[in-house]
Amino acid sequence: LIRTYEPNLVQYPLIGIDDDEFQTFKKLITKQEVRAVTLSKLQLQDDLVMWDIGAGSCSVSIEASNLMPNGRIFAVERNPQSVGFIHENLKKFCTRNVKLVEALAPDGLDELPDPDRVFIGGAGGHLEEIIDAIDKRLRPDGLIVLNAVTLDTLAKAVEFLEDHGYTVEATCVNISKTRRLTEYKMFEAQNPVYIITAGKGKGLE
Amino acid sequence: LIRTYEPNLVQYPLIGIDDDEFQTFKKLITKQEVRAVTLSKLQLQDDLVMWDIGAGSCSVSIEASNLMPNGRIFAVERNPQSVGFIHENLKKFCTRNVKLVEALAPDGLDELPDPDRVFIGGAGGHLEEIIDAIDKRLRPDGLIVLNAVTLDTLAKAVEFLEDHGYTVEATCVNISKTRRLTEYKMFEAQNPVYIITAGKGKGLE
Amino acid sequence: LIRTYEPNLVQYPLIGIDDDEFQTFKKLITKQEVRAVTLSKLQLQDDLVMWDIGAGSCSVSIEASNLMPNGRIFAVERNPQSVGFIHENLKKFCTRNVKLVEALAPDGLDELPDPDRVFIGGAGGHLEEIIDAIDKRLRPDGLIVLNAVTLDTLAKAVEFLEDHGYTVEATCVNISKTRRLTEYKMFEAQNPVYIITAGKGKGLE
Amino acid sequence: LIRTYEPNLVQYPLIGIDDDEFQTFKKLITKQEVRAVTLSKLQLQDDLVMWDIGAGSCSVSIEASNLMPNGRIFAVERNPQSVGFIHENLKKFCTRNVKLVEALAPDGLDELPDPDRVFIGGAGGHLEEIIDAIDKRLRPDGLIVLNAVTLDTLAKAVEFLEDHGYTVEATCVNISKTRRLTEYKMFEAQNPVYIITAGKGKGLE
Repeated sequence: LIRTYEPNLVQYPLIGIDDDEFQTFKKLITKQEVRAVTLSKLQLQDDLVMWDIGAGSCSVSIEASNLMPNGRIFAVERNPQSVGFIHENLKKFCTRNVKLVEALAPDGLDELPDPDRVFIGGAGGHLEEIIDAIDKRLRPDGLIVLNAVTLDTLAKAVEFLEDHGYTVEATCVNISKTRRLTEYKMFEAQNPVYIITAGKGKGLE
Repeated sequence: LIRTYEPNLVQYPLIGIDDDEFQTFKKLITKQEVRAVTLSKLQLQDDLVMWDIGAGSCSVSIEASNLMPNGRIFAVERNPQSVGFIHENLKKFCTRNVKLVEALAPDGLDELPDPDRVFIGGAGGHLEEIIDAIDKRLRPDGLIVLNAVTLDTLAKAVEFLEDHGYTVEATCVNISKTRRLTEYKMFEAQNPVYIITAGKGKGLE
Repeated sequence: LIRTYEPNLVQYPLIGIDDDEFQTFKKLITKQEVRAVTLSKLQLQDDLVMWDIGAGSCSVSIEASNLMPNGRIFAVERNPQSVGFIHENLKKFCTRNVKLVEALAPDGLDELPDPDRVFIGGAGGHLEEIIDAIDKRLRPDGLIVLNAVTLDTLAKAVEFLEDHGYTVEATCVNISKTRRLTEYKMFEAQNPVYIITAGKGKGLE
Repeated sequence: LIRTYEPNLVQYPLIGIDDDEFQTFKKLITKQEVRAVTLSKLQLQDDLVMWDIGAGSCSVSIEASNLMPNGRIFAVERNPQSVGFIHENLKKFCTRNVKLVEALAPDGLDELPDPDRVFIGGAGGHLEEIIDAIDKRLRPDGLIVLNAVTLDTLAKAVEFLEDHGYTVEATCVNISKTRRLTEYKMFEAQNPVYIITAGKGKGLE
């Protein structure tokens, strides 16, 4: 039996993949709408190098890969269950240019090529070390995007990034939506996510 | 081989282009964050046919074009000032597969190929006729996405779409963000936008 | 005369009573923050007559009673379980000027004095009849405040009220808050509530 | 000429006074909806002592006074223009138990009676000193409520309060509303306000 390569674009959109299509650990995922805003903040261009730190389900890397077929994306994640789900998700969505790095950042970053873009979805308690490590490696005009759901992470990330000389913008995304196929359209809220964008180049001035 | 124009990807991201980069009529534009969510709701795949009705500055079409280099996008807009800005924007971002249709929809739709995706950014008071016209032409598994900023449009769009047999989801997007380079990071709110997604196929069930 | 129980103001605030202090049916309650905005929209003055239609746990009436010790408040509710909880709540908070009317509105309204203020927390599928009934009885400069959590109720309420000649304002309240005594302060969102305020008098012009 | 006492309740509600009714400096005011939530977080009971630090237009104190006719409220404000507006507002709303203290806090607090409640609407760059001063004077089961519109104030206030042993809750209030008497009901957003509530007593556990 020969199974030729099944292109994913027949079935899945480039961005906006339904959350339920991803295998996730404890339903932790950057949700569809926040993922889209995150990708827009990442200012992706084809052929960039991107690090995805605390990749979780890898949903951001998978959609970033669809935008950057010639990019090189490195998903750093250590949780064994998440790692298993990442393998399944990369296969399901036929993602070819995301490389999984099984490590707890900042471990594992040394071997990677210098990044143009870094997305931090989770810092596993090592936020300052991670920002230190990124700062030494980020290319000129590079960007760091970090999603925070707690006040603690929001405040610390902004502080660390500004201490390292970054210009920082924080965007709070509040989404509520109705469920399909219910008789009454009740707006159900998602918890707010704070998307922090940081850079040193002119793009953020 | 002489290549005359500079490829846009050197300068601009695929999605998330800064709002200020677009020429706009009365600053009316689908803002960066809402544009990203809108694109994710459009469930774009390369090579689709998309109509952009009430295109305004054409910002949604321009980023959709970056996602669908083999797609065919038709931007329908009649306001003469917007039309002038669209020409400038398409040129600036080197957008090659967006065709401008100078008309007040539903006028101008007859000559277009059947759409897989329709984005309605503005209906110019003809919402019901536009939905009628789309419904006759939308391909199987096609999707309609409409952005509403008034309760009137939100309520009518949902009513018309459901009357035509569509399954409808409404997503309210509330964005607030800090400005860069200010001493204090004050969150400034954008007005909420209601993104309505409608389809008849299995994708929305 | 022996007065046995302790007055409530020793223990409870006038407004802002913790949600958990109320007995509720299926946790349905106008939450603390939305209750406060609702009371502010009701524009209460001491000695007014207020109807609370679909009173639920009676939380809005109980706090309104604290603001209007000389007011007369009529809480209309038919659900037997809610009725039981209302009795308990009125007793717990020592509320003296809220009268419970066990009926499904518009039933039960005929015997009540004409209202200066009407709060509609739930319409039980009879929204149009209820607005009809209120409109015949509302005093000059009276106000109707209605809380909607579904698009259907929001749209219909605005339509019915405008058809009856009311000036209408809709306020969307989005609340997210951190939990006390957790290590990390994560903002958790409440579903948005649309507070509709309607009047015919000069107050809303 | 005899001017008998003109009761304010004939004209104005207890809470929810329209923002435009207040004289304000640079339109700075705690807006109607946020004021209501702030008052609910203050957990007011009649006869309490409340400090209002950085009183601005005094709108919070004026409505608190309507809730606590037997309370004693001290509005601390130094900006001369605000002070002028406070005098006008206190007169307009016939507020009898708000005493204006012309000082830049923590100056001026020493002479005041110990507070049961403190509202901080503005700290004028002295947040840490103000919290220090309050902490020495706040009565058992007292509460501090602080409204922040910048990330800096939000983060610092939470940090200082927790360092002083307080249990802290942060509530983010996002309001959008339609304007009355417009043809289309467009939701216009207010900037989000973070209401911080802090106490040491059992009320916040």
